[in-house]
Amino acid sequence: MSTVPDRPSNIKANSNESTVQPFPRSRKVHIKGECFDVRVPMREISLSETPGALSAEPNAPVAVYDTSGPYTDPAVSIDLRKGLDRTRSVWIEGRADTEVLPDLSSNYGRERAAAPELDALRFTHIATPRRAKSGCNVTQMHYAKKGIITPEMEYVAIRENCRLQHARDHGVVGHRHVGQAFGAVLPETITPEFVRDEVARGRAIIPANINHPESEPMIIGRNFLVKINGNLGNSAVTSSIEEEVEKMTWAIRWGADTVMDLSTGKHIHETREWIIRNSPVPIGTVPIYQALEKVDGKAEELTWEIFRDTLVEQAEQGVDYFTIHAGVLLRYVPLTAKRVTGIVSRGGSILAKWCLAHHEENFLYTHFEEICEIMKAYDVSFSLGDGLRPGSIADANDEAQFGELETLGQLTQIAWKHDVQTMIEGPGHVPMHMIKENMDKQLRECGEAPFYTLGPLTTDIAPGYDHITSAIGAAMIGWYGTAMLCYVTPKEHLGLPNKEDVREGIIAYKIAAHAADLAKGHPAAQIRDNALSKARFEFRWDDQFNLGLDPERARDYHDATLPKDAHKVAHFCSMCGPNFCSMKITQDVRDYAAEKGIGDIKVAVAEGLAEKAKQFKEEGGEIYKEA
Amino acid sequence: MSTVPDRPSNIKANSNESTVQPFPRSRKVHIKGECFDVRVPMREISLSETPGALSAEPNAPVAVYDTSGPYTDPAVSIDLRKGLDRTRSVWIEGRADTEVLPDLSSNYGRERAAAPELDALRFTHIATPRRAKSGCNVTQMHYAKKGIITPEMEYVAIRENCRLQHARDHGVVGHRHVGQAFGAVLPETITPEFVRDEVARGRAIIPANINHPESEPMIIGRNFLVKINGNLGNSAVTSSIEEEVEKMTWAIRWGADTVMDLSTGKHIHETREWIIRNSPVPIGTVPIYQALEKVDGKAEELTWEIFRDTLVEQAEQGVDYFTIHAGVLLRYVPLTAKRVTGIVSRGGSILAKWCLAHHEENFLYTHFEEICEIMKAYDVSFSLGDGLRPGSIADANDEAQFGELETLGQLTQIAWKHDVQTMIEGPGHVPMHMIKENMDKQLRECGEAPFYTLGPLTTDIAPGYDHITSAIGAAMIGWYGTAMLCYVTPKEHLGLPNKEDVREGIIAYKIAAHAADLAKGHPAAQIRDNALSKARFEFRWDDQFNLGLDPERARDYHDATLPKDAHKVAHFCSMCGPNFCSMKITQDVRDYAAEKGIGDIKVAVAEGLAEKAKQFKEEGGEIYKEA
Repeated sequence: MSTVPDRPSNIKANSNESTVQPFPRSRKVHIKGECFDVRVPMREISLSETPGALSAEPNAPVAVYDTSGPYTDPAVSIDLRKGLDRTRSVWIEGRADTEVLPDLSSNYGRERAAAPELDALRFTHIATPRRAKSGCNVTQMHYAKKGIITPEMEYVAIRENCRLQHARDHGVVGHRHVGQAFGAVLPETITPEFVRDEVARGRAIIPANINHPESEPMIIGRNFLVKINGNLGNSAVTSSIEEEVEKMTWAIRWGADTVMDLSTGKHIHETREWIIRNSPVPIGTVPIYQALEKVDGKAEELTWEIFRDTLVEQAEQGVDYFTIHAGVLLRYVPLTAKRVTGIVSRGGSILAKWCLAHHEENFLYTHFEEICEIMKAYDVSFSLGDGLRPGSIADANDEAQFGELETLGQLTQIAWKHDVQTMIEGPGHVPMHMIKENMDKQLRECGEAPFYTLGPLTTDIAPGYDHITSAIGAAMIGWYGTAMLCYVTPKEHLGLPNKEDVREGIIAYKIAAHAADLAKGHPAAQIRDNALSKARFEFRWDDQFNLGLDPERARDYHDATLPKDAHKVAHFCSMCGPNFCSMKITQDVRDYAAEKGIGDIKVAVAEGLAEKAKQFKEEGGEIYKEA
Repeated sequence: MSTVPDRPSNIKANSNESTVQPFPRSRKVHIKGECFDVRVPMREISLSETPGALSAEPNAPVAVYDTSGPYTDPAVSIDLRKGLDRTRSVWIEGRADTEVLPDLSSNYGRERAAAPELDALRFTHIATPRRAKSGCNVTQMHYAKKGIITPEMEYVAIRENCRLQHARDHGVVGHRHVGQAFGAVLPETITPEFVRDEVARGRAIIPANINHPESEPMIIGRNFLVKINGNLGNSAVTSSIEEEVEKMTWAIRWGADTVMDLSTGKHIHETREWIIRNSPVPIGTVPIYQALEKVDGKAEELTWEIFRDTLVEQAEQGVDYFTIHAGVLLRYVPLTAKRVTGIVSRGGSILAKWCLAHHEENFLYTHFEEICEIMKAYDVSFSLGDGLRPGSIADANDEAQFGELETLGQLTQIAWKHDVQTMIEGPGHVPMHMIKENMDKQLRECGEAPFYTLGPLTTDIAPGYDHITSAIGAAMIGWYGTAMLCYVTPKEHLGLPNKEDVREGIIAYKIAAHAADLAKGHPAAQIRDNALSKARFEFRWDDQFNLGLDPERARDYHDATLPKDAHKVAHFCSMCGPNFCSMKITQDVRDYAAEKGIGDIKVAVAEGLAEKAKQFKEEGGEIYKEA
């Protein structure tokens, strides 16, 4: 239970120090655009030299994708009470297809803004929202289909490309495996035009609400880096606004590409405002959660009007994507009654309950085109929810799940008719051998719209370790073509994650996403592995830590058994001790060859072999002959 | 750095309480053999009833495979100073093909036994060792090839079979997916004859040294449950004998099927004796580590004589399998010089160094048949070491690795000629898309001998989290057919694992092994998932915890946000709060259908649909038509 009251008016100007400290030996580097005034951040990790007998050999710095926004930039002063810079505003205004509204369009939003009892909780620097001018469509997909490259598109092209470009600029040419991409296209160089084309085809989305100008554009699609989402959110039981904002900055520090605010407690509206104003990554929500709060948790009392007002309220706050469970059709609900775990999606079960209570079709489905109209006026992307996803191994790939997926495919076509960016949510709990079927069916049914999956968990038997049960499934489905992986923390099924759980979940999913990028053969993926492995082999301990996903933990673990600073340059670790270190011995093997004055070790061995061949034959007998 | 001195003579009679506490609501059940006097343990987890409106519905108990030995059996009193009961002695003696030796055969063993300064460290209840009578071969494979079913074979048949049999006895018939077994054969009922046949073909091994009669037989082969190994061992830098024994009992508590003692520090001999005498699981070692200690860490000073004496020393202590790096041939060594991480296997690098220093072929290779002679005199199994496994993504599946694997295939044929049980070690670091090639090549080259892999790690970039990077690869290769997975702890590459790391590593690998069993479609695998998911769905929190791999952690995580006892029966958790729990809502959906007096919910919905169809068409317009 949280001991911190809701008190965002007393929120510290700076985020918790643990979330703003730059990573060790890392610096923020910005790359400028060629077409637009864009400034794309990446994190550059400096490495030390490889010691050598004659002269030290420098090691090129390594650039990594950076989701942490200005929080890790010492040049930027952060004030959570003011929010981040509204960098995208000038691009949005420049398109001249939006207008500043005189007031909030949502009734609920206006009520909350006027309620004096919320003064202490409210984020105080809310800008007046924008909306598309009448008749205009302001989605990135709309521009893309018209052949327009936006600053957002150039931004993501640079962002996807910069690691490889950085390596080339530093002359890094290392071994790289050819991947198995299952039909994905992974060009060596990502151009703005490639981005535009992918968005136009619906194969990728750039979640970028015009009311979230603080965001740094990113792209979700299987022809780009695999992305991960981290969920946050308080509930009626625990967690304060301040904690949630801190969890967001914490999640992006470790690598969350988007963050979903799944709050269900009181002050959902205010919590979300604080999060969005301070978030450099797209924010997603499940609006039905808030709508249900508005009817005191009674699903049967939900109405289209309440839901509609909630969509507008959230769209004008700047939510970048909405999970909409429009595929939970009345006819699918009975298919879940015999399941081991029924309906486990909160949104799915709310809508199923509503459908049954009213004997009516899901109102998100019947009002789907009206929802599209709202989405395109703010450029909110769809995340079509999998309300009937399996909640256990037993229920995987069943009729209910796949029925809903087919409906999501039909809804995708409708969304695309409106040029609304769309991704599709996926399971859930699926044993390994049934994962690929999910991916293949999703691509087929949903016209290659990006797939966004929760895990999947590959077994149900490890509560407390579901970040691991699911990282296995996530890595595999990411390899097969899933564009974004929704993380699972160790607290899944058990409780609300704290900061440490968020970190565990994010890192597990960064591992899964990166393993998928490697397996697909993403052009820049292996650079980091190679650099880290070289550092490891050369006992550059600090470089090994700093190149890892979690430098702090790597260092702590190392220091737990070898705490002295001297050991950081030691050519061994505590696992084997000085005489048994295989890397040290391998180095001795190389040195031995060098010392003999024979350039190519192969020659040395061949010479040795020739000399000894006769003797071997005598000694080795049968075995030698067989070799 | 350990603060506990080596003081096994002061070792507590009982193991640490944390390692002997039975799991909550679990009891040890024994199944008796039909042919032999075998008594096979399993752990039975009792479940509470499902509350119902009219009457409660009982839930059948669930049996799980139990590696923890007598430690979790309240009926057995443990005295670490005396060691476990020598249950297998009577079977071994009954075969009348072994003899008790007058003294230890190893020079080194005799020296250690005689040294007064070791009195305080020595395990004091050492039995005199046994060896095969002259001309006899005492391996399980030898018996199997002769058509003899041993008590060990009946034991493992019952052990592999008991979970399914237990479920059948309790009338459990739940949904089960058809797996994808890649050519593995997974019979519904495992018979002693099936076990014998698999051992005779070399497709499975039962590591069971005649000098380790304390062990509970287990089988390693791809037509059985996927097994996991946990590594222990002190080094010159840290860790005491007492700690290592405790880590062993700790590892088997969480599910280690075998334990490898990789000690490299002082007192290797004494540490091993304590571990074996107290271990109910097979113990593996890498004898070259100790041999190297005997020549003060100077690889070039190793000799066949020293190594031979070490093999005999360890075989007479009761080591069940030896990692032997006999495939590191001189001609493969130069292939590693251009690698990013050279040779990372300790054993591999020691032998490479020896080969180069002497310009001679690996003495393990040239003396391989002599090694077989020793192995078959004690029934020590081969774990043919992958000394040239890749230590980084960059080096995966290269010429050196695959060259060695081909040699291991040739050596397997030689071992089998001597009826020595053999498994093959595998990588290492491999990106996902290159894993299956490893498995396929191993099966082909090594005549389907069991594959025993370390991970593989699917990326190099996460030091501190390599239990996760590798659990992904382990689950996949287990699915493809690997018989045993060697765990990796979070400290991999960084330091020596402590108890908590051992637990993390074991659980991660139990997850991987079980996910693999599910994907292969192992007949009994899904019973536990189904039972846990049903408990989860029905808010039987205690049952959910108790059915999990780590009941303690699941409970702790739950209690972190909902500590009160009342919440254990609450129909919600802290993630969603009372109104938003999807499982509660799903139950409401079912209750709704029941309340309406309509047996089949499907009918209820169909009726509702018919009634509302006209109205839907008017309201839904185009969308409805498309559905």
